[in-house]
Amino acid sequence: MKRTSHIQELRKMIAEEKKRGRKINFVPTMGFLHRGHLSLIAQAQQKDAFLIVSIFVNPLQFGPNEDLSRYPRDLERDVRLLEEAGVDALFHPTVEEMYPNPMVTFVEVGQLDAMLCGATRPGHFRGVTTVVNKLFNIVQPDKAFFGQKDYQQYLIIERMVRDLNLPIQICPVPIVREEDGLAMSSRNIFLTSEQRQKAQILSKSLAAAELSIQTGQRSAREIERQLRERITFESQGIIDYAEVRDAGDLSEVTEIKRPVLLALAVKFGTTRLIDNKVVEVKPNV
Amino acid sequence: MKRTSHIQELRKMIAEEKKRGRKINFVPTMGFLHRGHLSLIAQAQQKDAFLIVSIFVNPLQFGPNEDLSRYPRDLERDVRLLEEAGVDALFHPTVEEMYPNPMVTFVEVGQLDAMLCGATRPGHFRGVTTVVNKLFNIVQPDKAFFGQKDYQQYLIIERMVRDLNLPIQICPVPIVREEDGLAMSSRNIFLTSEQRQKAQILSKSLAAAELSIQTGQRSAREIERQLRERITFESQGIIDYAEVRDAGDLSEVTEIKRPVLLALAVKFGTTRLIDNKVVEVKPNV
Repeated sequence: MKRTSHIQELRKMIAEEKKRGRKINFVPTMGFLHRGHLSLIAQAQQKDAFLIVSIFVNPLQFGPNEDLSRYPRDLERDVRLLEEAGVDALFHPTVEEMYPNPMVTFVEVGQLDAMLCGATRPGHFRGVTTVVNKLFNIVQPDKAFFGQKDYQQYLIIERMVRDLNLPIQICPVPIVREEDGLAMSSRNIFLTSEQRQKAQILSKSLAAAELSIQTGQRSAREIERQLRERITFESQGIIDYAEVRDAGDLSEVTEIKRPVLLALAVKFGTTRLIDNKVVEVKPNV
Repeated sequence: MKRTSHIQELRKMIAEEKKRGRKINFVPTMGFLHRGHLSLIAQAQQKDAFLIVSIFVNPLQFGPNEDLSRYPRDLERDVRLLEEAGVDALFHPTVEEMYPNPMVTFVEVGQLDAMLCGATRPGHFRGVTTVVNKLFNIVQPDKAFFGQKDYQQYLIIERMVRDLNLPIQICPVPIVREEDGLAMSSRNIFLTSEQRQKAQILSKSLAAAELSIQTGQRSAREIERQLRERITFESQGIIDYAEVRDAGDLSEVTEIKRPVLLALAVKFGTTRLIDNKVVEVKPNV
């Protein structure tokens, strides 16, 4: 596997691969890789494609009181995993390489970025869209892969690409879960074993809500009530949000008629976890 | 000359030229071409480069009370001029082609976009940077050419490209003037012959200010006072701004020590004209 921290070196490498007629596939990450990332990588390993993974913990998407400094990092372990997975190249720039000057330019996706995670993490998505736009301009991939655990992020990136005419196909990849249902996340390492146990309530409450919809419940408010009740009664988790939204554009839903996103953000101690499920409904069940 | 209104067709055309090893040079315009544009085109005609000119009057950069609907247009004349100039391809998309959906994504260059023209035209530069970002993603040029009459725009685009790692070289091209000094602009057509006469004061006052600096005046406030006095006394122009700014980052200047931008925006009747001059000073004159 090739490795570089330098934008110019990466550009050169990519230009050579393109000259040879290879497509460029790209998986941007913040490192501390888990099976969720490996699933993205497996999806991105396609015939004739040169696969680039980036590892960059992006300061721009962390709020002043968030966990930037304690965000878990283990580059050598990540490198080993990427090599075992057969990735072609790793791009792991420093903060100085990505932000040599104070940034004054930002890419913002309005509407989609103010709700759910955007409401409790002001500026977060602006940081994400700006760094992803930069990475896209550096890598110029044909396809980029994003996990659906960050469903809102996936929709925002997809919208940015469409609105700005970026010639990139955004490929969503399903959530990967632990045996007991907990969605894979680099932040899971912060959980105590008791919190780890309690955090199962996220996937369990989503499954129960899905069942409730599939057996006829069509009220978004009632589904949200059920989610909140279950999480509050069965764990000490502090709910940030538990919402039913349109799966296409995250708009508010009253009656569940089209595919919806059930979206959760819950704090266990100091660790904020998110999870979600897209539920489709058949008309006139 | 090739012509297309369609993004996909343009992309195909460009991909073929790139495959043949040609560089892509790009001149974005709003049409109604004049000698200023032709100077951009002449600069952009380089060996081994395929030259694309775009004509698109971008609604996003006009305010609700601005001159979008009456902005001058004459596509057939423009086509003739571009053919005579030997341009390789014209891209002239419709508004629907550029904005098929309501835009929610915007590219903003902070700091630089709030002063001068940004102060009187809120949202203007956000409209410019967003459409130029889109055009850059569509054309993916190696070099793009911008006139220095829109000096602030040039600096903003240059900063956007740097901050977002766009692999594009931004080439500034000097202002082209009429015989009597008036800077070329598509909007000059709106001037009555009396206003046209009075508008000479823009270039004349800039020349006088330059002379004043070169003969020792170092106070930015005094230069601004001279500019305002001359424009007010010698024309009926209504001054929007007359400022001395740092030529590199448009920051405020008190004592003129480094290259400065003398920047003017003045309304003659309903027509707002801009002009500017970069003045370098030798230390210890």
